[in-house]
Amino acid sequence: MAFTKDDFKNKIEEIQKESWYKQPLGFGIARVDRGQLNKDKILQATFPVVNWKENYGSAAVFLNALKEAGIEVDTSKSEFVCSVSDAFLTSCIETFRPYIPEAKGQDHKNVQIVSKLASLPIDTGFTEDDYKVVFIFEDETVQSVEAAYLKLYALSSGKAALRSLNLNGIFGTLHNCAWVGNKPVELDWLRENEISLKLTGKYPEITMVDKFPRFLSHIIPADNVRILETSKVRFGAQLAGGTTVMPGAAYINFNAGTEGAVMVEGRISSSAKVGAGSDVGGGASILGVLSGTDGVPVTIGENTLLGANSCTGTAIGDGCILDAGVTILPGTKITLSEKAVEALKEINPGKEISTSMKGSDFQGVNGVHFRVNSTTGQTIAMRSTREVKLNADLH
Amino acid sequence: MAFTKDDFKNKIEEIQKESWYKQPLGFGIARVDRGQLNKDKILQATFPVVNWKENYGSAAVFLNALKEAGIEVDTSKSEFVCSVSDAFLTSCIETFRPYIPEAKGQDHKNVQIVSKLASLPIDTGFTEDDYKVVFIFEDETVQSVEAAYLKLYALSSGKAALRSLNLNGIFGTLHNCAWVGNKPVELDWLRENEISLKLTGKYPEITMVDKFPRFLSHIIPADNVRILETSKVRFGAQLAGGTTVMPGAAYINFNAGTEGAVMVEGRISSSAKVGAGSDVGGGASILGVLSGTDGVPVTIGENTLLGANSCTGTAIGDGCILDAGVTILPGTKITLSEKAVEALKEINPGKEISTSMKGSDFQGVNGVHFRVNSTTGQTIAMRSTREVKLNADLH
Amino acid sequence: MAFTKDDFKNKIEEIQKESWYKQPLGFGIARVDRGQLNKDKILQATFPVVNWKENYGSAAVFLNALKEAGIEVDTSKSEFVCSVSDAFLTSCIETFRPYIPEAKGQDHKNVQIVSKLASLPIDTGFTEDDYKVVFIFEDETVQSVEAAYLKLYALSSGKAALRSLNLNGIFGTLHNCAWVGNKPVELDWLRENEISLKLTGKYPEITMVDKFPRFLSHIIPADNVRILETSKVRFGAQLAGGTTVMPGAAYINFNAGTEGAVMVEGRISSSAKVGAGSDVGGGASILGVLSGTDGVPVTIGENTLLGANSCTGTAIGDGCILDAGVTILPGTKITLSEKAVEALKEINPGKEISTSMKGSDFQGVNGVHFRVNSTTGQTIAMRSTREVKLNADLH
Repeated sequence: MAFTKDDFKNKIEEIQKESWYKQPLGFGIARVDRGQLNKDKILQATFPVVNWKENYGSAAVFLNALKEAGIEVDTSKSEFVCSVSDAFLTSCIETFRPYIPEAKGQDHKNVQIVSKLASLPIDTGFTEDDYKVVFIFEDETVQSVEAAYLKLYALSSGKAALRSLNLNGIFGTLHNCAWVGNKPVELDWLRENEISLKLTGKYPEITMVDKFPRFLSHIIPADNVRILETSKVRFGAQLAGGTTVMPGAAYINFNAGTEGAVMVEGRISSSAKVGAGSDVGGGASILGVLSGTDGVPVTIGENTLLGANSCTGTAIGDGCILDAGVTILPGTKITLSEKAVEALKEINPGKEISTSMKGSDFQGVNGVHFRVNSTTGQTIAMRSTREVKLNADLH
Repeated sequence: MAFTKDDFKNKIEEIQKESWYKQPLGFGIARVDRGQLNKDKILQATFPVVNWKENYGSAAVFLNALKEAGIEVDTSKSEFVCSVSDAFLTSCIETFRPYIPEAKGQDHKNVQIVSKLASLPIDTGFTEDDYKVVFIFEDETVQSVEAAYLKLYALSSGKAALRSLNLNGIFGTLHNCAWVGNKPVELDWLRENEISLKLTGKYPEITMVDKFPRFLSHIIPADNVRILETSKVRFGAQLAGGTTVMPGAAYINFNAGTEGAVMVEGRISSSAKVGAGSDVGGGASILGVLSGTDGVPVTIGENTLLGANSCTGTAIGDGCILDAGVTILPGTKITLSEKAVEALKEINPGKEISTSMKGSDFQGVNGVHFRVNSTTGQTIAMRSTREVKLNADLH
Repeated sequence: MAFTKDDFKNKIEEIQKESWYKQPLGFGIARVDRGQLNKDKILQATFPVVNWKENYGSAAVFLNALKEAGIEVDTSKSEFVCSVSDAFLTSCIETFRPYIPEAKGQDHKNVQIVSKLASLPIDTGFTEDDYKVVFIFEDETVQSVEAAYLKLYALSSGKAALRSLNLNGIFGTLHNCAWVGNKPVELDWLRENEISLKLTGKYPEITMVDKFPRFLSHIIPADNVRILETSKVRFGAQLAGGTTVMPGAAYINFNAGTEGAVMVEGRISSSAKVGAGSDVGGGASILGVLSGTDGVPVTIGENTLLGANSCTGTAIGDGCILDAGVTILPGTKITLSEKAVEALKEINPGKEISTSMKGSDFQGVNGVHFRVNSTTGQTIAMRSTREVKLNADLH
């Protein structure tokens, strides 16, 4: 009674036709960290693999296995989270059987995970309740820590585009913790044990206190990505291949990042994104939507240089330069010479360009060089005559 | 022969009436880290609890126990430090007896500490000399590492106000060390063992070289405080509840900090403080008194926004905005329109406001919006028309 | 048959006269870290001691020992790397014999290293192939990881001057790794083991992903150097005694650094250097040669203050001040009053100083105060009237 790959496909089709079945946006199996005092508090969910708009066969296997294990999956809600039971694993393995021999390396990772879980030695210290199967059916307000992490994984792995996900509710869902390496620790647990830990020299080295973990605690970047300090990239950020993040003033928040090779020595605030070949100079600030701005996400084009200590609060096009120290906010009044207007019109056909513009008027205008005239203090824009090119050695 | 809480109170009163008794400003019991080569060098003092202008009963118990243990406590000096002996602990426990049953959780922490110390197993690796009882009687120049730490604890725990303590002598007292996690290591010890450690792959991961430890190595922050990278807050800083410290260009030095919920993405230099509801933008610099300034501490008011990469070298009032990139030093000449003067006078009755002011003239002036006119380069001030409000999700 | 110090000297002279002998620029013995998957990939080389234009006696001993161990050393190439064999160690020890009794502490470190290696217990987990003897004969393009590290050690230990070494090829030679403490890990190894590591809670704490390690993983700084966060100084940087590196926006890249006591709260980019007594203010940027500039290395003179969030892209002299927020690029037009021209000429005899200068004209001009006139927006230069002096407590 062999079960072949064809049988597998037939079975998946069957499952997908069932009335209760609903195709998820994303799903995966996670190991969770729980509170030291409050075991019901999920502090972190670690996914070895996330599936986002893909691998629907595995989704069907997982959903069917839950059903077979006697779990009622409510696919009418936006998300579903459930402990991984032996019955669930057994059912998954049964269905995945024809793929198990080839589930190695980068192939069939969902199969690898259930195989690995089924074969974990008893003494790992983890129980069934420490593993969760997680589904997101609709991109609604975040309801659970596990779904919050699944969305952040989708962003940081590059499977979901920046700004494409509904992250409402995420601050309310995640718990503020002390982090000891990759491990979240309740602040109350520290309070309860402070005297004993301190007197015996066992007080832990806390690297941060936050709701979000760090990008590098969950994501293995592309080979040509460099992050010179882990704290500089929050989980939920997205870094395209070739991106380098320096350790000075740089920072990339969640739901922000790069869309190609970018040198990052400044801040890319939440919801901001930077195009391929661009250079965010030392201390340059790209404003975000969380604090102190008008809430419009900022996009920086390709091959654009934001000079050291510049500040950008509005969209900037391709092939632009902001000189070091220059600030362009949406309302900044910028003066252009007649010659500059002509030169910019030539390469930006159809764009409205005039001798007096505001920062926000430059959306989609390419090849602009923004400067402050150091003899008059006037902020000016002109046709950029220098090509911005990243150092090929570094990206 | 019961010893009741009333007996305890009577005993404390007796002690406090004795001629040698002096009420301390602060006191506590610390575990100390000593030099690896020079055991006489105290590198760090870790207090599970500090008492600052409080818990005088415990102070009396400790002082009396020292006396009973045969130690002569010189209360005429500004500070007193002494090893914790078995005799001292026995006496403390004897006196604390009526409180021992209820010394749990957040109650009677001084009692908990002596109980814990008395019951430490023999094989902890620590000896009597690794625990110190520390008193500060007068706020004078710092004389010992233990007293330096006690003062820094008083600041970082919020028990002493920022700028309220005499920290003279602190740089001379503390030793520069390599830090391996929370543990200080003498640079000379590294030098002596460099060859062996490196050849055997045991050279430690050194996270910093400094005289001061990090805030998070000693202090458990309030539940709604976030510090996204431990190096960003030096021990001796003070963070009020709701403060968030981001990992880009932020930094808070000792004897500096926040007085309410504040978003910190910039630098709060030594002696500077920031009021509730304010936002220190990415890369914003609040100048301090240690380097390159005229030594007047800077205070930032409430609900004030210091824009990204702005720089502030003088006091700023409540409800003010510095645009991104704006620099206001004490001598900066700032121009106001007649309309701006009127509008600012209206909400700042009694303040001298005119069409030409210097940065330092704005002390105590509220509701000011500082900008650079991008068509003239002129630094101007006007009535701020925008309310600065922190994102409630983040604080 | 004693072998005395005189015998040693005679033997060295003999070796140095041999036709195959060539005096190296630098040499040393390193322990190497290899790839977890690809054992042929050298990820890091840790030298307990590096020799740079010094200790030629030890060089002769090492080269001779290699020859005696049957290794053919090709001294015609720019560098040579070879595993440390028992035969090599035996020969070294034989020749070093008269120095072995006094090889302790800071004396005869090359002798200490071979003694230590010869006496390592068998169960260290390391083999002969984990130790390499490394020579650089000519300062050519870097060919091997070991030689790359030797050059970076020469810079960071202060044995070779900043900008004095040929570092071409270094980015191509070093491998991008995840770093777990001081240990480099292949990203591919993480990928291969991600599922297992994450499910069992053993995924490592990765502190960075980069080709270069951190300065403090290899170098023990002078007693009066402070580095408040290890990520802020890349290996290959050079910090003179008295330098303090703060944890806000500071960063010092490889082949960059300080030539005396300097306060560093800003960025010293690759190839930039700063003279004694200077202060690089919070967020100040000194541009480098790797990204977004014209490739001329920037030198900052002595006792010069670069104000907070200032930006410098050209050489600045001694005793200068850049006000907070001021940007001086090579092409920045700077206006001087007649009075300022006279005052600057007086202290800079022979220098061309006029009422209209560019940033790059100020190379070698001392005592200049750069400001932006806040009533006109004009960038101006004048005679500095304030002495820049570091706080003696801090350096």
